Amino acid sequence: MDKLNISYCSDKYQYTMGKTFYDLGLQKKIAVFNMFYRSAPDKNNWAVVSGIREALEMISGLGSEDISFFERFIPGDENHEYREYLANMRFTGNVYCMQEGEIAFPGQPVIIVEGPLIEAQVIETPLLCIMNHQMAIATKASRVTRATTKPISEFGSRRAHGPWAAIYGAKAAYIGGCMSSSNIFTSEIFGVPSTGTMAHSFITAFGCSIAGELHAFETYIKSHYGEPLILLVDTYDTLRCGLKNAIKAFLNNGVDDNYEKGFGIRLDSGDLAYLSARCREELDNAGLKKCKIFATNSLDEYIISDLEHQNARIDAYGVGDAIATSKHNPCFGNVYKLVQIGGQGVLKRSEDKSKAINPGFQITYRIIQNGSFKADVTCLRGDVLSRKIEQREAITLRDERDDTKVTTFKEQSYDFKPLQIQMMKDGVMMLKEKTIQEKRNYYLSNLQCLNETEKRIINPHFYKVDISDDLYDLKEHLIDSLVKEIRDFDEPELK
Amino acid sequence: MDKLNISYCSDKYQYTMGKTFYDLGLQKKIAVFNMFYRSAPDKNNWAVVSGIREALEMISGLGSEDISFFERFIPGDENHEYREYLANMRFTGNVYCMQEGEIAFPGQPVIIVEGPLIEAQVIETPLLCIMNHQMAIATKASRVTRATTKPISEFGSRRAHGPWAAIYGAKAAYIGGCMSSSNIFTSEIFGVPSTGTMAHSFITAFGCSIAGELHAFETYIKSHYGEPLILLVDTYDTLRCGLKNAIKAFLNNGVDDNYEKGFGIRLDSGDLAYLSARCREELDNAGLKKCKIFATNSLDEYIISDLEHQNARIDAYGVGDAIATSKHNPCFGNVYKLVQIGGQGVLKRSEDKSKAINPGFQITYRIIQNGSFKADVTCLRGDVLSRKIEQREAITLRDERDDTKVTTFKEQSYDFKPLQIQMMKDGVMMLKEKTIQEKRNYYLSNLQCLNETEKRIINPHFYKVDISDDLYDLKEHLIDSLVKEIRDFDEPELK
Repeated sequence: MDKLNISYCSDKYQYTMGKTFYDLGLQKKIAVFNMFYRSAPDKNNWAVVSGIREALEMISGLGSEDISFFERFIPGDENHEYREYLANMRFTGNVYCMQEGEIAFPGQPVIIVEGPLIEAQVIETPLLCIMNHQMAIATKASRVTRATTKPISEFGSRRAHGPWAAIYGAKAAYIGGCMSSSNIFTSEIFGVPSTGTMAHSFITAFGCSIAGELHAFETYIKSHYGEPLILLVDTYDTLRCGLKNAIKAFLNNGVDDNYEKGFGIRLDSGDLAYLSARCREELDNAGLKKCKIFATNSLDEYIISDLEHQNARIDAYGVGDAIATSKHNPCFGNVYKLVQIGGQGVLKRSEDKSKAINPGFQITYRIIQNGSFKADVTCLRGDVLSRKIEQREAITLRDERDDTKVTTFKEQSYDFKPLQIQMMKDGVMMLKEKTIQEKRNYYLSNLQCLNETEKRIINPHFYKVDISDDLYDLKEHLIDSLVKEIRDFDEPELK
Repeated sequence: MDKLNISYCSDKYQYTMGKTFYDLGLQKKIAVFNMFYRSAPDKNNWAVVSGIREALEMISGLGSEDISFFERFIPGDENHEYREYLANMRFTGNVYCMQEGEIAFPGQPVIIVEGPLIEAQVIETPLLCIMNHQMAIATKASRVTRATTKPISEFGSRRAHGPWAAIYGAKAAYIGGCMSSSNIFTSEIFGVPSTGTMAHSFITAFGCSIAGELHAFETYIKSHYGEPLILLVDTYDTLRCGLKNAIKAFLNNGVDDNYEKGFGIRLDSGDLAYLSARCREELDNAGLKKCKIFATNSLDEYIISDLEHQNARIDAYGVGDAIATSKHNPCFGNVYKLVQIGGQGVLKRSEDKSKAINPGFQITYRIIQNGSFKADVTCLRGDVLSRKIEQREAITLRDERDDTKVTTFKEQSYDFKPLQIQMMKDGVMMLKEKTIQEKRNYYLSNLQCLNETEKRIINPHFYKVDISDDLYDLKEHLIDSLVKEIRDFDEPELK
């Protein structure tokens, strides 16, 4: 397999647009791009940030291809100078990001890229590709893990969209609350705890018979004694032979409630609520009270929530495709929009005014009282509100779409955290790399600061997400002047 | 970025199961595994095969990690010999695959792996990971491209699940009927034609004004004159300024119906049916009859089909997330099941008998009359029916679930093709690599052999998919003996 140079896993148009910027000498003009999303998948209202590390590595990789690479898709003598420029072009700007494990709300910049126009433009595609994937998976993992207090293992490599998605998706799933992953590389690269049991093919390899199943269980225990032992019991018939064979295999081979490494059975088909209750009963009767029951089989947050409501006797869940492909909503909607160029705020208009993007160089503050997140507000950097917040002065937040909705925080009554942290300065990474466990713990600690009603998997309450008056005014001003200009431009022809 | 060794992008349990096989000396026992799917996404009834090349490369990569790699997830002195075995283990078996661009029906082996047990077992996860991804995308691309006779460009790298999914997904989309891709690497690696236009950020980089939009268009044309020129017209207001600016920019810069490289506008928001009609009218009035209209904006097969029914004046479509993530159904359901071990057929039972897998070493024949695909039948290799088919003798196919449904083909009245071709022999690749264009053409020629009613995107007719009597009998025999064995096993305790 070739090395996958993700920095150039891009759309061709990034480079054709770049050519025009280059021809005009705009390559050093300073641009600010925001990466943000408009609505979270599965009506979740918020999303879990993951992928920042890979995004920054991708940005750092700009300049790693030589000129021959560019010749292949930007041919022609007339492009020689531009190709030389690209081959020598490293990223020299600044990048501000939310941390992995942060909870991001719609419209907030998850990543802000401030740098020379072409450098900042061409990274759009790989940046979105990395971030949309990982935020889809991390957010889905958050939903699935919120459906139960039991541990969830991520098992979905076989359904992920290729090996990259398997490895980095499992990373995102761990940050989003999963307990472990089945993927070898995710464990190797990130130190995510790994889990694994056995497949049906392991059982059938011992011949298609009940005796074969028992033989499979017993030899597995013998060759893995001293490790966690989880036997898959539904190959032929869970209650009539699988469970009985498992109990026999455990007891015949010295595995009982004194076994210290953990042991259990896995149910992968049938009525999991019913089967788990029956299995629990028979395991208890056999004196195997510490034998855990794992459940798998196309599980998602809704099915798990339902099993929990039925008091299924399940100790842990394994989830595959629902998390690995973010099955109900595989397409996470981060976009990357130019918000400022040469110091001037810009925006793309939208027919629906409420969808117009926030222009200018921004920063988002999270307002915290007594360890609870109360509201977020996105400001222009250094604007009136941001200065007040930094001094913890009294502030009033107004809902952008309904100015009768007003919230006031008294001076010194709140704490705050700015959500976008500078992680790259003049092209140099400033990121103090955290461990995957720290990122996961950060997500879990953030989750604790949300209200219970905001964490529901169905119909969660909306959290307060606002913009500052100065940002609002800049946006209104840009839209109004555009509308006026369009009216004046168009009218002569309407007469 | 590290090199991504896809051969080992696997679930840990493949290697823990392997340990038990190794301890029992089963590593050289010959196993046969089938990779197949049970139902196609989006009720499509059939799927497009893609990913075979990468799957075979993955299999060939077994043995490319040294012993230290295995130490990290199979630690312990007691595993030293097993780790040495794994580090030296290359794949030495045979692989039979459908060709890329083949049309595969449920239950048919898309890939058959015949080889020593551990070698054939451990490739399960990466094989499914590659194939599930590419078959999801190729099948979705097939659906989207069947919704119109107009060309479809694949634009979805930014929404794909990471860079691997972007690159190889775009490859699969091309095989499934797309005309081109925006991804640079897909074009580089596979020779897929590349396309690209411009983004809204290109327009807003010239300042948030109508004059800026015109400036953006004109400079783009100047720096790309002699290439295809497609201007994005909806940044501020499609009809009131975008289209007018585009027409002005074309005419001011010598781009008219005599321009040979192709030119057009792109609509990315609003009512595409209405806007395309209005744009067509104004373009025609301006004498730009050859100016093409491209449409994008969260399109999928249903929206495109609807636009076509409204006679939208759209010349080509760009499709992003719907194809790149197989949005409605991201999880393709290929599974990898042991069907034979040491010459004996095996199966995993299912509560639903109709879901029991087909055991034994199989081959699927496609029966063809007058250039039309009439029926498929999966046989045990060398069984009675397969010998008849190979001699083009008279055959009778029986529906597995309803034996009143019978189809007869007279002798010499039909042609046939076996669908699984041997592509690896004793671990050596036999694949004569085809170009991506050949694979796409193969898919398109297959599509022509299906009945129109089988190609509908909603409620397609079912194509006839059967199994041979010998395969049926083996399956029944295995299930019956299992059921009998389970009854006998269970009864003593019920008394």
